[in-house]
Amino acid sequence: MSPFFDRLAGSVLRKQTPLVVGLDPRWKSLPESFHSASDSLEQRARAYGEFCVGVLDVVAPLVPAVKPQVAFFEQLGWRGMQVLDEVVAHAKSLGVSVILDAKRGDIGSTAEGYADGWLGDRSPWRGDALTVSPYLGDDSLQPFVRAARDRSAGLFVLVKTSNPGGKFLQDLVANDATIYHRVGDLVERLASESAGESGYGVAGAVVGATYPEQLAELRQRMPHTWFLVPGYGSQGGTAANVAGAFDDRGLGAVVNSSRAIIFAHARDEFADMDWQQAVEAATRRAIEDLRSAC
Amino acid sequence: MSPFFDRLAGSVLRKQTPLVVGLDPRWKSLPESFHSASDSLEQRARAYGEFCVGVLDVVAPLVPAVKPQVAFFEQLGWRGMQVLDEVVAHAKSLGVSVILDAKRGDIGSTAEGYADGWLGDRSPWRGDALTVSPYLGDDSLQPFVRAARDRSAGLFVLVKTSNPGGKFLQDLVANDATIYHRVGDLVERLASESAGESGYGVAGAVVGATYPEQLAELRQRMPHTWFLVPGYGSQGGTAANVAGAFDDRGLGAVVNSSRAIIFAHARDEFADMDWQQAVEAATRRAIEDLRSAC
Repeated sequence: MSPFFDRLAGSVLRKQTPLVVGLDPRWKSLPESFHSASDSLEQRARAYGEFCVGVLDVVAPLVPAVKPQVAFFEQLGWRGMQVLDEVVAHAKSLGVSVILDAKRGDIGSTAEGYADGWLGDRSPWRGDALTVSPYLGDDSLQPFVRAARDRSAGLFVLVKTSNPGGKFLQDLVANDATIYHRVGDLVERLASESAGESGYGVAGAVVGATYPEQLAELRQRMPHTWFLVPGYGSQGGTAANVAGAFDDRGLGAVVNSSRAIIFAHARDEFADMDWQQAVEAATRRAIEDLRSAC
Repeated sequence: MSPFFDRLAGSVLRKQTPLVVGLDPRWKSLPESFHSASDSLEQRARAYGEFCVGVLDVVAPLVPAVKPQVAFFEQLGWRGMQVLDEVVAHAKSLGVSVILDAKRGDIGSTAEGYADGWLGDRSPWRGDALTVSPYLGDDSLQPFVRAARDRSAGLFVLVKTSNPGGKFLQDLVANDATIYHRVGDLVERLASESAGESGYGVAGAVVGATYPEQLAELRQRMPHTWFLVPGYGSQGGTAANVAGAFDDRGLGAVVNSSRAIIFAHARDEFADMDWQQAVEAATRRAIEDLRSAC
């Protein structure tokens, strides 16, 4: 199998969009048809599975990747994790890449444990890529990088996150560079050492749409690093805000939208549609909107 | 129920030790009786469950808490997460506290998702405490703090980790303070705002045994923050190294040991015992060793 970011570049070009649909199931936001008398963990897990499969059936032909948010499955205990397994299997059967948003991080053999659980076709959850957190330092990323290389998978390391509090630590300046620049430089080194045909290496970066200037600056500073850009849509990021994330070919970034797409049935503009029609309309609208950016 | 760190202080005094036993099951390190012809995920998960239950039966009367390392259960996919559920249930039935080492971190409702999954008796995995990562900033910790307060649970925020690469980011100096001091100051503020009868608040900190000077300095700087100290034993930390972690009452810290206890059957000195006798002997030896420290 070719390296993940080469595959991702191919499907971004084929589908002509960098849009990633975030699978963030929330019990209270599901379309009415999923509600039932019982809200047991078992019942909720089953509903999450059916809902995500329904979303996938609509969006898989339209976008290069989906991004399940692992926290919402973990919220339901092991039953949620079992359903996540089925959701990933369905996504893979439809040929769409799966970025597992789990923000894992640990050291040595413990990090290997996480990588074994999440990365690659032979892992239990079979992710094409995984988000990871860098607080434990450079040696904590190595097992993830090795696993990603061995298994043609990808990583997205948290660099500059979309939330306001991200600045608490990430924007501190040490030796004339912010923490996010330092983490970014480390990620870029890991990426440049492993660059595939697309020019991008196994280590990608999470950089929020809510900081457009930093996004454009990091694009220049990290030429071998593919970006996963959260914060577009519901968190206030616009297509103009994410324009700086792309290289000259329109590659180098995918842009995530979750709630605005999967819960489109709750948006006034789609009120006359059934929930899957609303998902499709919202996906097509986001694709159109992003077209102006890349 | 009383706040977690008050309960923990009580059991440290009752059992007269700050030792926490880490439940880090690894397939190749299990005693021979757990090996079988098949090494399917299902078979391995079953073995992890039986092994951890066997460890718990020995150590629960001796120590105040156990610390399952979630990565090793996640390594086996949802089957591992299901077994973790059974392991926690067994620990609770034996009256020993459960610190879930998952190093989770995310923002807003996503962080709430994790907290809902892990913290408190009504959560699926029913942890008494959870380790969390601070890279996403102060606002990312709030949902965990709220959930911990509401559910009489505790947190341990990564501050100064035991691995060599921890210094890559944690030791950088910004505005005359290291990153770990800044994170430590934030955690201490959250702890002081929620201090219970023991004097310790809902936010604890992970501080490695491999940095004894910093450990002692942080103890002074963070008087309301209970420490979880990894790195004792297999990572080279000694009883003398952890001495600075405790307050005048011998409280304020628990010290984790994983491999040296749960895989004690592989240590020459315990070669003539069955594996559970070896676990008991190694636990008693670590308790004795730590007695000199606090």
